[in-house]
Amino acid sequence: MTFRFTLHATDGAARSGLIETPRGTIRTPAFMPVGTAGTVKAMLPESVRETGADILLGNTYHLMLRPGAERVARLGGLHQFMNWDGPILTDSGGFQVMSLAALRHLSEEGVRFSSHIDGSKHLLTPESSMEIQRLLGSDIVMAFDECPALPAERGALEASMRLSMRWAARSRVAFGERAGNALFGIQQGGLERDLREESAQALREIGFDGYAVGGLAVGEGQAAMFGVLDYAPAMLPADKPRYLMGVGKPADIVGAVARGIDMMDCVLPTRSGRTGQAFTRRGPVNLRNARHRDDPRPLDEACACPACKGYSRAYLHHTIRSGEIIGAMLLTWHNLQYYQDLMAGLRAAIAEGRLAAFKAEFDTAQAQGDIEPL
Amino acid sequence: MTFRFTLHATDGAARSGLIETPRGTIRTPAFMPVGTAGTVKAMLPESVRETGADILLGNTYHLMLRPGAERVARLGGLHQFMNWDGPILTDSGGFQVMSLAALRHLSEEGVRFSSHIDGSKHLLTPESSMEIQRLLGSDIVMAFDECPALPAERGALEASMRLSMRWAARSRVAFGERAGNALFGIQQGGLERDLREESAQALREIGFDGYAVGGLAVGEGQAAMFGVLDYAPAMLPADKPRYLMGVGKPADIVGAVARGIDMMDCVLPTRSGRTGQAFTRRGPVNLRNARHRDDPRPLDEACACPACKGYSRAYLHHTIRSGEIIGAMLLTWHNLQYYQDLMAGLRAAIAEGRLAAFKAEFDTAQAQGDIEPL
Repeated sequence: MTFRFTLHATDGAARSGLIETPRGTIRTPAFMPVGTAGTVKAMLPESVRETGADILLGNTYHLMLRPGAERVARLGGLHQFMNWDGPILTDSGGFQVMSLAALRHLSEEGVRFSSHIDGSKHLLTPESSMEIQRLLGSDIVMAFDECPALPAERGALEASMRLSMRWAARSRVAFGERAGNALFGIQQGGLERDLREESAQALREIGFDGYAVGGLAVGEGQAAMFGVLDYAPAMLPADKPRYLMGVGKPADIVGAVARGIDMMDCVLPTRSGRTGQAFTRRGPVNLRNARHRDDPRPLDEACACPACKGYSRAYLHHTIRSGEIIGAMLLTWHNLQYYQDLMAGLRAAIAEGRLAAFKAEFDTAQAQGDIEPL
Repeated sequence: MTFRFTLHATDGAARSGLIETPRGTIRTPAFMPVGTAGTVKAMLPESVRETGADILLGNTYHLMLRPGAERVARLGGLHQFMNWDGPILTDSGGFQVMSLAALRHLSEEGVRFSSHIDGSKHLLTPESSMEIQRLLGSDIVMAFDECPALPAERGALEASMRLSMRWAARSRVAFGERAGNALFGIQQGGLERDLREESAQALREIGFDGYAVGGLAVGEGQAAMFGVLDYAPAMLPADKPRYLMGVGKPADIVGAVARGIDMMDCVLPTRSGRTGQAFTRRGPVNLRNARHRDDPRPLDEACACPACKGYSRAYLHHTIRSGEIIGAMLLTWHNLQYYQDLMAGLRAAIAEGRLAAFKAEFDTAQAQGDIEPL
């Protein structure tokens, strides 16, 4: 079986469909929980599956440093290692090298850096990134790119984008043919429309199984991001999945889907869960806040996750404030459930041609804010 | 329905039976996981239940300070608060006040102390301990006592034991009658046989629904503890449950059960799980050790817990070394499963009159040590 994307419905620019892979089918628009270092933090993989997630993201940078890609390969690959038999997308490592590693040196060849864990020296190139993602057993491999933070000078954005396109071509060659696996190219160009077009053109000429809109959610703010998403997805082939990397808040996701994005990932639901921030239909709720101390009500009475079915806000407040692991477990589960429920709602709305109404209801509910304190 | 203990089988001094409570039946000998502050750390309560636990222990000291007993009561009691509908035993707070609180002052009345969390001042007495345990909704309430560390001077042990017996009488009065709930007295006396007898006599005269052997596992070592257990349980009424507090390692548990103990609790399986120490049929295994780094084998191929069914030693090693929460979750689950499997094995052996053979097999397997490295 090969990698295949089928579009089932559109509603304006928004699309819903299915990505079929040998390891299972991904319903799009899809949100991918982030399993950084071989675990979606504070969750068992069967619980992640229960929330409705079809695919996880793994971080090449983290995994290559610890436990190491060769070790993961010897242990049967990332799926067996982390006990997740569904599809896995791995990033290229490029973004996190630039944000996490020490002593980075960028050249045409790639990036030399020192590990933030033990200072060991590494070289990441398009070729080594493809090899590491192969060793991990990734189902969807990302081309190696450079992702500059915004704001950035146009000259720097242009040079960086062109480097990324040369790396994309090298990634394509190094990836070769891998039965059932997909290689995605990544569009760059910051907020510059002509650079986005030049990048899309370069990627289309190379040819990929899917296309990411990269270089967003890096400091530009939602309005600027939506500005790019108003035109960037349409520059990419309509018959391939479009993946917006590292996004985002619930409103970012709704806006991105409305603009034609099929896949997204973000650490926000998991990271926020560990610190007591919950996402709900009525907007974010900070469970650390003392107003929840005596509140016997569930976080969201309409949510089917264990945190909402079994516990009061008072309990969530108590466990988060006490640093109890169950607080992180329950709020992470809730947030991932909220994100997957949001995606299911978006998919249904697109299929039924009522995305505008869905979005209006979403905006109203979010603006309404949390339930009144007792 | 009332609290009732039924003895089903004996094998030497060892006993197996059932404790019936309005919230469910406890198979004895029973191991009670410790849910210190309203959570068995790193576990969902349904997972604790899945390991085979019939009853949890809650810590009065922790809960009175945070979130507070009155608050727990307003929120429906500890069972509803922590989402555990089975029986809960609460300790009296006495032991932890002496080990955790700051600025303790002991008097005939009780113990004045400052919270280790926020420095707030509190007074714990037999009467207030009974009231706090009532507010929590405890099914099995422990009398308020003082538990001296060992070694201790005989004079000090005697004075402490007699104070605890006066407190036991006050606890009995303050407890009054609570339908379906039980009050347990606690024997003290350190390693002094005559003091143990005097204490048992005092408790029997007061009359309790169950009797704890207290003041052990406080520094005396296994041989000295077993020395006391060779005679202390027989000093307590045979028709009531006998509870050994704060014990222990697997070999401690086997030895205590063989000497007539019906109930035990300990933080060891949960605390050890969080730091990478696993208990197995073949003895303890430290998953932090580098020898597990490349080991694709399960921790224990005969164990049915999620850690052993879904993951390699290499994965457990990786997640524990990386500080990933799933490492704590999986090893805590395994350790609780191991403890409950051990209790199930002990109960079956007693029922079938083959405890000596069970114990010999246990000792042999533990001495054998972990499987050979690859």
